[in-house]
Amino acid sequence: MSERPSGRAVDALRSVSIQTGFSTHAEGSALIRMGGTEVLCTASVETRVPPFLRGQGQGWVTAEYGMLPRATHTRGSREAARGKQSGRTQEIQRLIGRSLRACVDLKALGECMVTLDCDVLNADGGTRCASITGAWVALALALEGMGKSSALTGQVAAVSCGLTKAGPVLDLDYDEDSTAQADTNFVLTADGGIVEIQGTAEERPFRPEEFQALFGLAQKGTQELFEAQKNALRKEG
Amino acid sequence: MSERPSGRAVDALRSVSIQTGFSTHAEGSALIRMGGTEVLCTASVETRVPPFLRGQGQGWVTAEYGMLPRATHTRGSREAARGKQSGRTQEIQRLIGRSLRACVDLKALGECMVTLDCDVLNADGGTRCASITGAWVALALALEGMGKSSALTGQVAAVSCGLTKAGPVLDLDYDEDSTAQADTNFVLTADGGIVEIQGTAEERPFRPEEFQALFGLAQKGTQELFEAQKNALRKEG
Amino acid sequence: MSERPSGRAVDALRSVSIQTGFSTHAEGSALIRMGGTEVLCTASVETRVPPFLRGQGQGWVTAEYGMLPRATHTRGSREAARGKQSGRTQEIQRLIGRSLRACVDLKALGECMVTLDCDVLNADGGTRCASITGAWVALALALEGMGKSSALTGQVAAVSCGLTKAGPVLDLDYDEDSTAQADTNFVLTADGGIVEIQGTAEERPFRPEEFQALFGLAQKGTQELFEAQKNALRKEG
Amino acid sequence: MSERPSGRAVDALRSVSIQTGFSTHAEGSALIRMGGTEVLCTASVETRVPPFLRGQGQGWVTAEYGMLPRATHTRGSREAARGKQSGRTQEIQRLIGRSLRACVDLKALGECMVTLDCDVLNADGGTRCASITGAWVALALALEGMGKSSALTGQVAAVSCGLTKAGPVLDLDYDEDSTAQADTNFVLTADGGIVEIQGTAEERPFRPEEFQALFGLAQKGTQELFEAQKNALRKEG
Amino acid sequence: MSERPSGRAVDALRSVSIQTGFSTHAEGSALIRMGGTEVLCTASVETRVPPFLRGQGQGWVTAEYGMLPRATHTRGSREAARGKQSGRTQEIQRLIGRSLRACVDLKALGECMVTLDCDVLNADGGTRCASITGAWVALALALEGMGKSSALTGQVAAVSCGLTKAGPVLDLDYDEDSTAQADTNFVLTADGGIVEIQGTAEERPFRPEEFQALFGLAQKGTQELFEAQKNALRKEG
Amino acid sequence: MSERPSGRAVDALRSVSIQTGFSTHAEGSALIRMGGTEVLCTASVETRVPPFLRGQGQGWVTAEYGMLPRATHTRGSREAARGKQSGRTQEIQRLIGRSLRACVDLKALGECMVTLDCDVLNADGGTRCASITGAWVALALALEGMGKSSALTGQVAAVSCGLTKAGPVLDLDYDEDSTAQADTNFVLTADGGIVEIQGTAEERPFRPEEFQALFGLAQKGTQELFEAQKNALRKEG
Repeated sequence: MSERPSGRAVDALRSVSIQTGFSTHAEGSALIRMGGTEVLCTASVETRVPPFLRGQGQGWVTAEYGMLPRATHTRGSREAARGKQSGRTQEIQRLIGRSLRACVDLKALGECMVTLDCDVLNADGGTRCASITGAWVALALALEGMGKSSALTGQVAAVSCGLTKAGPVLDLDYDEDSTAQADTNFVLTADGGIVEIQGTAEERPFRPEEFQALFGLAQKGTQELFEAQKNALRKEG
Repeated sequence: MSERPSGRAVDALRSVSIQTGFSTHAEGSALIRMGGTEVLCTASVETRVPPFLRGQGQGWVTAEYGMLPRATHTRGSREAARGKQSGRTQEIQRLIGRSLRACVDLKALGECMVTLDCDVLNADGGTRCASITGAWVALALALEGMGKSSALTGQVAAVSCGLTKAGPVLDLDYDEDSTAQADTNFVLTADGGIVEIQGTAEERPFRPEEFQALFGLAQKGTQELFEAQKNALRKEG
Repeated sequence: MSERPSGRAVDALRSVSIQTGFSTHAEGSALIRMGGTEVLCTASVETRVPPFLRGQGQGWVTAEYGMLPRATHTRGSREAARGKQSGRTQEIQRLIGRSLRACVDLKALGECMVTLDCDVLNADGGTRCASITGAWVALALALEGMGKSSALTGQVAAVSCGLTKAGPVLDLDYDEDSTAQADTNFVLTADGGIVEIQGTAEERPFRPEEFQALFGLAQKGTQELFEAQKNALRKEG
Repeated sequence: MSERPSGRAVDALRSVSIQTGFSTHAEGSALIRMGGTEVLCTASVETRVPPFLRGQGQGWVTAEYGMLPRATHTRGSREAARGKQSGRTQEIQRLIGRSLRACVDLKALGECMVTLDCDVLNADGGTRCASITGAWVALALALEGMGKSSALTGQVAAVSCGLTKAGPVLDLDYDEDSTAQADTNFVLTADGGIVEIQGTAEERPFRPEEFQALFGLAQKGTQELFEAQKNALRKEG
Repeated sequence: MSERPSGRAVDALRSVSIQTGFSTHAEGSALIRMGGTEVLCTASVETRVPPFLRGQGQGWVTAEYGMLPRATHTRGSREAARGKQSGRTQEIQRLIGRSLRACVDLKALGECMVTLDCDVLNADGGTRCASITGAWVALALALEGMGKSSALTGQVAAVSCGLTKAGPVLDLDYDEDSTAQADTNFVLTADGGIVEIQGTAEERPFRPEEFQALFGLAQKGTQELFEAQKNALRKEG
Repeated sequence: MSERPSGRAVDALRSVSIQTGFSTHAEGSALIRMGGTEVLCTASVETRVPPFLRGQGQGWVTAEYGMLPRATHTRGSREAARGKQSGRTQEIQRLIGRSLRACVDLKALGECMVTLDCDVLNADGGTRCASITGAWVALALALEGMGKSSALTGQVAAVSCGLTKAGPVLDLDYDEDSTAQADTNFVLTADGGIVEIQGTAEERPFRPEEFQALFGLAQKGTQELFEAQKNALRKEG
């Protein structure tokens, strides 16, 4: 087993910071940094629901994801200019939306819609997980502002784990992510529930026991993220 | 615990059939039926590779997924007419492509591309899993026809499992899928490896032990699918 | 004059079969095979009409056409992935829609819409004509299911004819179609009416008397198709 | 039988004029007026061929068709603004292209491409036929300018005929076209050949003998159009 | 200082003509020619307003701009075929719309919409300015036909000026435009007001006093255009 | 004359700050704040040029502009999701590109391309001007990093001015911008040259002397911006 490129322990998160209020106009916002990854998450509240929910007395939570063209090592093309969102982008924003809906009582929300925009300003691996963790803070702030904190039924955070040359490790950065043998994302709740699991073999199929090791790392890592989320809200309050 | 709507045992697959050679022109094809779900999988071989692989002495395997407009209970709009593939479609075809690449030695394949088209003729739940299971047969036939069976490094099949009113069950049909509390898809190899795991909470976060139960069902179910794949190839040969 | 590549007589159709009920969910469906050409035709009934017909007390019949990417000798790109339907596709689906509307009393249909989806599973020439012939069966079944058989005012079938090295011939297959000097499609009614005629010179302008010969072949060929349609409905009933 | 709305005899064309040279930059251009229908046809020559013809020592002729938004009674939406060409537009431009290719020896043309743009400035029925008749003049001028008049192997013109309350009539205007029982377009050559026939039943299937009557009218009408084309070229020369 | 390529004086417009009534169906139309530039401007009146104005008791004026593919020296691709309008097209049509709204009292117009379509038939520089000058005439005619001439609160015309080898000059043609050091467009009112100024350095930043010289030329040039507009309306009346 | 809503003097800029190095990966980056407006400007260098410049021994500078969906008071739709950039976006990014090209010697740049991405994180008026001013800093840093500072031939900054209830004022914020009678943008060079002038009447045509007053304010305002740019580069160095 070799060292991690960053020198981190296998079960160490990168340094995490969550800054609220970065966005002037949004009902809730959080700028989350996990190492070199930086995502601006905003929650926008609108008093309408999508057509399929009209008149049903419940609300909706949805998400959109984007990456600034030069958030990455080499410039990527702008999706707005290309005229469509990539499959990757759609997959990620669908994941973020599902994850956040898992901690909201849509009936208690009432007939309104919260859109979580997660825009990556700097990318160094783990952007979808950082988006979920940050979006939860933005959402909590927006619900608080609406006087609907009770609609928030749980606390959700996400972290990636992977099989690398250093074995199973927590919170992959870009270097690790691009060479990992397996890449997994875990969206978990503070009380130990599973919201979403995505595990992908990259170079070779992996073993059930390897999967268990990754799951264990994620459980540890998200506990720290739940603290970071609570601290960010505390500072705000 | 209530009964499954279909009366099946909790660990019972639907009846499976895989018919090879349905497509006249394709280098390999398999029409797979899992209960009321029916997917036509074709493998098309082209002597070119995507731009990012040119001149690297290796091949590529990719997939596209579609659903006939009236494969479903109510007619869905035709993606070609709407002018774009939905996020769901893209997510599924990315999954199929990743899953099949996991069992091919791309260097042994040489500079050519195999495209797996999975088109759903009738839908009754589990179409992405049936697509993967059927596409593996189409791929195996195409590689055999090319004299490159050795590039096939493993056997891959997929099955969905979920938490329903009948508890954890194997191989959800549409009725179960649309009301499940959690929905998981497992793509596994015949030698017990994990290619892809996707688990999604639908109504409530689920527990690690529930996840283990679903995983166990998937391991049992895919063993039967591996048999069905081998039988289909045997009949063909 | 040389022989036809298939050895068929100049006025011989390919073997025709029409299987009803292939589609589980559609209100009517017919899988039509004409030699190596195979088209799945479904009729979907919806209780709405297009905007331009709202509140006029009449219904609408429309059609969409598609080809699976590997229905052809070499794989074609998927229209949904390219993001638009080709001019050829649009031309064909407009033709199918017009042809089927010609045998329906839209006022008797009432305010509902029947969409005929014609998806080519295997292509060997004559796909637009097979689509029309098959769609008529799917439509008849759907109307019967709605208790509106009386809205069906006629029987419509279509066949292609062309000028080849074997002279004027009936029901071109792909080999003949791709080298014909002229290519014509006739959509006719069982009582001898003309619904649509399309004739195109491919290599040289053709003569009026050649056109007459092709028309004569089409009249003979469609008589056999009308029988096949009636047989398919009889088996169903 | 009633009179035609315009008072014209059943076998009378509208007044026809073809003005060459309207377009300053095009290698050939013709502004054709048939009654209230006015189409600007330009021929543009480029020293390249489409990819599928590269290196084959032959040229290509293609066409594009458009309608100014207010060429019609009520303003239509601009196709460039909507972001796609309608099925009707594509069908028409494919017809124009095929029709003009039928009178050009593509090998004699050499490796270059002639694009015929037909833009309707004022519409009063018969725009696709006027486009073909005018485009032939623009094409002839362009070929002459290239010193390749010998690549022009024939003279092509088009006219619509239809079944109206006045019986079978020649050269429908908008009033007649929108209420005709059948609508046919004939693209013919000066030596009596058929390039394209399109016949469509609008209200009821029509009879073979009705079709013959329409064909006879078209043969008469195109003779006059061939004269008008020759006159336009004579004035130019 | 050298001569202008056309031999015109530095403060001379090209010959201007404005022909009304070219379009058969439009509520107002003007075919404007400025030297070799020719633009067909139509005004279409609809009894609806855009969604953002509904129920506010005021109307709207908007514009769309297009160029026939072969209006230019070499054929440009058709925007409808490419599936989108270029940035240049959108910029120009936004300018035309703003310019014409500046001379209409939208409340006096009432709840209706006037769309100004400006389609370039032949291009030799200055098409956006010619579009504005011609569209004003089309608009005036449409308002007159509606009995709402009083909603027209001013007279608007536009002209381009630029810094060329001949110094500051009025009304650039294509030759001058493509080599100018600075290019400016002025949209002015007959009573000396500024509606829009656009000035762009092409090869080098330009000096404030150069800008003043260009402005002076534009003031002179538009005076002549106001006369041409009035003459066109007088002939019509 | 009333006060400005912000209480600023008519010739006072908002507080300006320019932070370099915000973007981890870009060759140059500047986060510019002008009051409540905040734009992240990155310069990306690629060793390729657009097709129209290949093999000409010169480089290219281009720009893209975007706004995060919740940069504004109410959430705007994401252009990537809508599938196209608005006319406004295209107009702005064309302006930024032209403005920055005006201060680069493209031959001295050599065959490479610099893309300036300007993404608005928070919007409070004047985003296009802030983009230009910030992009100049990002560009200067990128050129310095390439060892090509000599290709930078001038210093460019931009500011908006407008006619408001407080008379002609410098540097409009959103409140002023949305109610101004006239809105102008000036892109100027440090040595007093004009790169671009855009002036638009909003409620009424404005007078030449009003335009002069706005120009004077812009000259004063850009002097302060040139200082801010130099300070930002100095801190970096």
